[in-house]
Amino acid sequence: MSKPVLIVGGGPAGLAAAHSLATVGKSAVIVEKEDRLGGTPILSGYAKLVPTGEWAKDAIGGMVKRVEDEPLVSAETSATVTAFDGTPGNFHATLSNGKKIEAEAAILCTGFTHFDSVNKPEWGFGMFPDVVTTTQVEQMISSGQGVRCPSDGRKPQRVAILLCVGSRDRQIGREWCSKICCTVSSNIAMEIREELPDCHVYIYYMDIRTFGLYETKYYWRSQEEFKVKYIKARIAEVTSDGEKLIVKGEDTLVKRPITIPFDMVVHAIGMDPNVDNPEIAQVFGVDLESHGHLDVGHTYGAMAQTSRPGVYAAGASTGPETIDDSIAQGHAAAMAVLSAAKEVLSKTA
Amino acid sequence: MSKPVLIVGGGPAGLAAAHSLATVGKSAVIVEKEDRLGGTPILSGYAKLVPTGEWAKDAIGGMVKRVEDEPLVSAETSATVTAFDGTPGNFHATLSNGKKIEAEAAILCTGFTHFDSVNKPEWGFGMFPDVVTTTQVEQMISSGQGVRCPSDGRKPQRVAILLCVGSRDRQIGREWCSKICCTVSSNIAMEIREELPDCHVYIYYMDIRTFGLYETKYYWRSQEEFKVKYIKARIAEVTSDGEKLIVKGEDTLVKRPITIPFDMVVHAIGMDPNVDNPEIAQVFGVDLESHGHLDVGHTYGAMAQTSRPGVYAAGASTGPETIDDSIAQGHAAAMAVLSAAKEVLSKTA
Repeated sequence: MSKPVLIVGGGPAGLAAAHSLATVGKSAVIVEKEDRLGGTPILSGYAKLVPTGEWAKDAIGGMVKRVEDEPLVSAETSATVTAFDGTPGNFHATLSNGKKIEAEAAILCTGFTHFDSVNKPEWGFGMFPDVVTTTQVEQMISSGQGVRCPSDGRKPQRVAILLCVGSRDRQIGREWCSKICCTVSSNIAMEIREELPDCHVYIYYMDIRTFGLYETKYYWRSQEEFKVKYIKARIAEVTSDGEKLIVKGEDTLVKRPITIPFDMVVHAIGMDPNVDNPEIAQVFGVDLESHGHLDVGHTYGAMAQTSRPGVYAAGASTGPETIDDSIAQGHAAAMAVLSAAKEVLSKTA
Repeated sequence: MSKPVLIVGGGPAGLAAAHSLATVGKSAVIVEKEDRLGGTPILSGYAKLVPTGEWAKDAIGGMVKRVEDEPLVSAETSATVTAFDGTPGNFHATLSNGKKIEAEAAILCTGFTHFDSVNKPEWGFGMFPDVVTTTQVEQMISSGQGVRCPSDGRKPQRVAILLCVGSRDRQIGREWCSKICCTVSSNIAMEIREELPDCHVYIYYMDIRTFGLYETKYYWRSQEEFKVKYIKARIAEVTSDGEKLIVKGEDTLVKRPITIPFDMVVHAIGMDPNVDNPEIAQVFGVDLESHGHLDVGHTYGAMAQTSRPGVYAAGASTGPETIDDSIAQGHAAAMAVLSAAKEVLSKTA
């Protein structure tokens, strides 16, 4: 039990796993490919998080600080795992920086990759500067700059948020739902309305998936308190008349074609499997599920178990996930590691 | 650190929390109001669980056995907590059976109450015997009886599943979404089609919320492989012509009134806050959120924290929740208890 647990990825799930292990006196090494911990909420500059409304830099930043202050946890940043051999209790990892780590087990908290909107060219991203992504709007808010049209810095008077960009779209090989974009978009719409009370915000959707208690806090509140408008529609294309962006499609409830001018169009981009997953799967010898996420077994026994004994996975590495659930899964994966170690001990005792 | 942790509720979240605590050598006492452990999946006789397809009696039954075999965990069944005093590290609980328990902390895993369909009288439950709930269909499947019309035992040829019964319905004071009914209904629809290949199954919905990877495994698979039909509709009432049940409403996509005969109508019943929550809140001195669930704070620090220090909550006690997430939250709540104890120790050291 003296070897550390190797945690790959320093986002919410990885930070939670490391904290849990340290809580019970178990050491951990976090290997993070970027130059600092925090994962996507920090690295992509998210603003106020769903559902707490806390700023990402405070909420996830606090998790980073807690782990950095913890003597039992060390971090290797700007590093990846290039080889991983051995058996449960006795793994050997080689890092891209040349270091070698002996590990009892590994937890893969390698997250996701934001969908790149250039892969949906008919919706205007990369062609018109005022077509942006939810991540860009998060950055406009978190930076303090405010929501502005990139083309000329003006305050938009009409904003369209298009849901399911890179989600539920078989034409471009993304069949899954990204789970959280509906709620994040509601949240962003309210942020825009709060900063720019004269700006009209429309959300174009297939199905509104503000599940559970998000229904009240986001779907209803955004409509009633913030006057955000929801339109069930199929969007065909985003073009420009030289002055405004033009969203064309069909309102599927009234069965009418729509052609509406906007100052800014926001793509609610989905969660792709981490682009590194094929390499991660090969290095760690674990299976991917059909969409390309890390495959995990059931939750009833040792949860977060991949196809390789002693290697676990948590958070958005296993499929689109909320931050809260990623954190819970990180804690639970840490417990699964400890539980498996206990079983080994009891068998050898 | 010698006192046990009190866990209230022996369902998936409570079983997970108890297992986690025992894993790290910490004892726990589960207080369960019913006469056995397992929670709703066992007590309501669920069939194959989302998303693993494992039978509830095996999946959750296995979790029960693991905890029952664990010397560090004891259970008080057919009992409730009637008083809970003290401070973190030093709580005193009195049970309805007269026993007294000294506890370091408490985790409330008190789950939910199924919506009672008699509160939606215009949809025919309680009036027509062949109007049933998703829970009843689960029981027909798990008992081995098969899906049959209660009125005369015949195999239904046409089944309608109505979503959002007791969810997203302000008229009856249930504004929240129950999160998992869409996916459970897809699952049940496939089960029916598998047992009765000649039976047509229709799902009437507002929004289909098969979020994340459920989209592929349930929404698409049920349509393509099992030919389940999805109709976006507002249902007005369920009546009978003396022979068949008649579902009346409006197809909201084609804007046409619908009047369709069925042999069986299934209410996809939602998750109400546990009816005992007002009492639980009073005994434990914790706050409820606006809908009546147990209120918990953010997940970034010690997750699962209620308004009373030393008292935690996990799973569907805090809002509609999946089984998998309830389990992860149970493990995470156990870690939060240990983490808080560690902080106290380090401050007094």
